Amino acid sequence: MSPSFADYRQLAKSLSVDALALVPGPNFTRVLGQEFMSHERPFVLVIPAQGVPAAIVPNLELGSWELVGFDGVVFDWRDQDGYQPAFDALAEHMRLSSLAVEGQVMRVFVHHALKQASPEVQIIDAEKQISGLRMIKTEADLAAMQAAIDLSERALHQVLETVEIGQSEKEIEGRLIQALFAEGADGLAFTPIVVAGDNSARVHGHAREDYKIQSGDALLFDFGARKGGFCADITRTVFVGEVSAEGRAVYETVLAANMAGLEATRAGVTAHQIDDVVTGVLESSPYGDHIRTKTGHGLGRDVHEAPYVMRGNHQELPAGTVYTNEPGLYLSGKFGVRIEDDVLVTEDGCQVLTNFPKDLLIVGG
Amino acid sequence: MSPSFADYRQLAKSLSVDALALVPGPNFTRVLGQEFMSHERPFVLVIPAQGVPAAIVPNLELGSWELVGFDGVVFDWRDQDGYQPAFDALAEHMRLSSLAVEGQVMRVFVHHALKQASPEVQIIDAEKQISGLRMIKTEADLAAMQAAIDLSERALHQVLETVEIGQSEKEIEGRLIQALFAEGADGLAFTPIVVAGDNSARVHGHAREDYKIQSGDALLFDFGARKGGFCADITRTVFVGEVSAEGRAVYETVLAANMAGLEATRAGVTAHQIDDVVTGVLESSPYGDHIRTKTGHGLGRDVHEAPYVMRGNHQELPAGTVYTNEPGLYLSGKFGVRIEDDVLVTEDGCQVLTNFPKDLLIVGG
Repeated sequence: MSPSFADYRQLAKSLSVDALALVPGPNFTRVLGQEFMSHERPFVLVIPAQGVPAAIVPNLELGSWELVGFDGVVFDWRDQDGYQPAFDALAEHMRLSSLAVEGQVMRVFVHHALKQASPEVQIIDAEKQISGLRMIKTEADLAAMQAAIDLSERALHQVLETVEIGQSEKEIEGRLIQALFAEGADGLAFTPIVVAGDNSARVHGHAREDYKIQSGDALLFDFGARKGGFCADITRTVFVGEVSAEGRAVYETVLAANMAGLEATRAGVTAHQIDDVVTGVLESSPYGDHIRTKTGHGLGRDVHEAPYVMRGNHQELPAGTVYTNEPGLYLSGKFGVRIEDDVLVTEDGCQVLTNFPKDLLIVGG
Repeated sequence: MSPSFADYRQLAKSLSVDALALVPGPNFTRVLGQEFMSHERPFVLVIPAQGVPAAIVPNLELGSWELVGFDGVVFDWRDQDGYQPAFDALAEHMRLSSLAVEGQVMRVFVHHALKQASPEVQIIDAEKQISGLRMIKTEADLAAMQAAIDLSERALHQVLETVEIGQSEKEIEGRLIQALFAEGADGLAFTPIVVAGDNSARVHGHAREDYKIQSGDALLFDFGARKGGFCADITRTVFVGEVSAEGRAVYETVLAANMAGLEATRAGVTAHQIDDVVTGVLESSPYGDHIRTKTGHGLGRDVHEAPYVMRGNHQELPAGTVYTNEPGLYLSGKFGVRIEDDVLVTEDGCQVLTNFPKDLLIVGG
């Protein structure tokens, strides 16, 4: 079964470029149906608007490449010969004058090799449009994502039952990761964020080994499994032992913002509008000085992808988009609260794919 | 404690560039002592040959950034404002005419933003030199790497005790990952390769769910934990139930190549010389047509880093370098064997950091 390049060819036409170049990453996996490593070795798939596709393939990957059923021209290269001759041969073969690339995936050394092979080629960053082809999820995509979400939530349930005062963030993070794999994760969508107390006020804080969780601490989990090529991305914030009045008030504010965002979601609403509603709730609270992030981002094969849900992005969200609704408030030096759902946009509203309860939860009392 | 940029400043001088730019990845973590996420958000540290360093920091990371003790100028930016103004402000502030970057780490969208802010700046790919600063390991580096290796080997021992005919590669891979985290891994150096039978002949094959391991299959594990910022990278190939005469002959050939490489290693020998010895053993065997890879690569914060151990690389290996010695033979459609050690180069030879036995092992009989 040969992969279909139809939507990429169509995109090349609409971008008025001769071809698109994909490198290992979420688009590459989507089109080829298999993951490939790249590391120090350039690996490039070139899909022209018209004509036969071509690929630059590290020779040692040919055994895996044969499984793809690629119907095109392959320029393979061996480590000892270097990759530039393969780029030169591809350039000679295709004679491109313009090429659209994934700017957030392709690395500079590949860009340099493309330019060295054809100094005249115009390389444009079409990350938004290329990755945009993944924005509307298929039924199969959604099934994989739901499996990733469900197993992630099972892992969180298990870990919360074991949380006790005096444990370190790192210890809890370790148990979360083990639970994710025990529940069937293929991988992690990203290194989990497990942060408590003042560390929870850091948006992307790192689990500490040397801090022991105390009664009254906020404990924030931001994590997700990868399954069948798709990511979960969930945040829940719980309190350990007890919760202060301020903790409760901040929690309820963040939850209200999250709920308002879900209420505002339906096909055709813009990313700007959703963020405006969500951030508006936070701004009109007594905690408006503690906002550090936008509402969220698209979710799929990549844990951060289009659409970015923020003011200024006037892109309409079509049915089938999945985005993260993750408002937060971060009281520097004290604590932070974030609540994150994965949300499928539908014609008449939304379907919240995350099912973990959002009522304020006190654990390890 | 403020991070030291002395060796990077010195490198900028010797490269005759105004500054180096680092982005999240192994060099960034080394110099700042902490990992940062990037995803869709540019995050750049600019270290000039002389003068005050500067950084472009996503606003939401400032809470973590403050832990770094950075003594320089910070240009932070918020999602809703976009990142280009921060690049423009940095360009205006630093007025660089040349900048060396990590070509295998920096992505094209960051390169574009740098060029847009200062179209005249000359950007050179100094991946080799910048990452080369990590080549000689410190005692602390080696202690972290040894911890990663030791826990990885404990995990493999556990998993091998559970292998049975009829299991799938995917099932075994799942158990290996769980064992790695149970043994204390911070993360995975890369997605493990667990492949059997004909799939072991693919250098970077993927674990299958639908193939049941049979008696006589080769079963190849290529994997490693990440611990304290450092990677393990180990390969062992075992046989299940029984081994054919060909399996044994191929195994002994690969082991002889591996051992010859260890024998040839000492400070001052070139990467070319080691690969020539290792590959020479394979070439002079009856299986010379089944070589698909070079001997190996440097190992450290990144699982593939300088020096690349292959013919044509006439770089001398200094004491303190760690490289992977991983010869293999890949009999397409039949089986593959690879044996990989992590090797510390010393003044008078080498120290093999991997301790897992290399005698031909039959499991699950």
